[in-house]
Amino acid sequence: MNHERQHPQAPIADFIARRWSPRDFDAGRPVEHEKLASCLEAARWAPSCYNEQPWRFLVTDRFRTPAAWQQLFNTLSSGNRGWAANAPVLVLISSKLHFTRNGKPNRWAAYDAGQAALAFSLQAADLGLATHQIGGFNAAQARKAFNIPPAFELLAVMALGYMPASEPGVEAPAPLRVRKPLQETAFWGQWGTPFNPSA
Amino acid sequence: MNHERQHPQAPIADFIARRWSPRDFDAGRPVEHEKLASCLEAARWAPSCYNEQPWRFLVTDRFRTPAAWQQLFNTLSSGNRGWAANAPVLVLISSKLHFTRNGKPNRWAAYDAGQAALAFSLQAADLGLATHQIGGFNAAQARKAFNIPPAFELLAVMALGYMPASEPGVEAPAPLRVRKPLQETAFWGQWGTPFNPSA
Repeated sequence: MNHERQHPQAPIADFIARRWSPRDFDAGRPVEHEKLASCLEAARWAPSCYNEQPWRFLVTDRFRTPAAWQQLFNTLSSGNRGWAANAPVLVLISSKLHFTRNGKPNRWAAYDAGQAALAFSLQAADLGLATHQIGGFNAAQARKAFNIPPAFELLAVMALGYMPASEPGVEAPAPLRVRKPLQETAFWGQWGTPFNPSA
Repeated sequence: MNHERQHPQAPIADFIARRWSPRDFDAGRPVEHEKLASCLEAARWAPSCYNEQPWRFLVTDRFRTPAAWQQLFNTLSSGNRGWAANAPVLVLISSKLHFTRNGKPNRWAAYDAGQAALAFSLQAADLGLATHQIGGFNAAQARKAFNIPPAFELLAVMALGYMPASEPGVEAPAPLRVRKPLQETAFWGQWGTPFNPSA
């Protein structure tokens, strides 16, 4: 595939550019409660269809709710356990599948939960924290472990913490991130016609 | 319902706080191409499962691709046509339902498209633009109008433009936005146990 590395094709805000998903965390450094609250609060202000706010964030903390953290950690695929073991916070992200207002299926349940998840991640990055979302987890096991009603779909586990290299006031360098060229995912006027960022 | 108005329960970044979804746009003021490119570029850097980047953004511009804009506008529900008629840009947001790498269903297709959509919205707000996402549109009609393959789910139409009151350097005041209390959507250690932002 014709991917490109870390070259924005148009100017973007720092708060977008600085977010990335590390595969390591500082295992000994807890996340301050007030920063956790800010991340959840940022998610709260995400937009959603009919303002349903279908997302639910179940927070587990290796230092403060160790049994819950372990239960959630145990649902991760083996490939993710290696690095996620160092994450001080794991958040289970879920979404309500029907509208509260009328009981009808909400086809934006996952879409809107994704919006809330990105708000969480960007707020975290703004506070010097890092996030890495994990799709590779056993949703059925997580549902059972936390007794989550079937009305909610379990979508992702968000790892949250500080990066090992990070010190107060010192940011770890972002690695090269890889994305498709903008022209492959943004179209102009008709399907498949590439959007040209420079004209 | 026990909603709360516009009172953040924990500090959040300006780039989160300033985004809201107006129901009016300055119909006579186009969106600069470079700003549009920045919004799409911000979406490009959203995270996604296996870095699939399943989202596709089809951009239509009332000034530059008027026929396409009209076709997309025509898919909107009557309730949204009133205010969206003033939006200079309408973007159809879709997502690929299967992974390109192995053809398996991507259950994060909508979730990841939501992340990209929020990145677009926050970048827009950072540039003084406003966005309002619309779920109320006829997806089948849009698919037919733009000949979009069934491999893609059509999720939302994003209206983009300037707010009527906005002048260079002057921001329109954000209205009171309503959200559920954080305690209803964020849990601590177990399902249903409210997260307390202050302790």
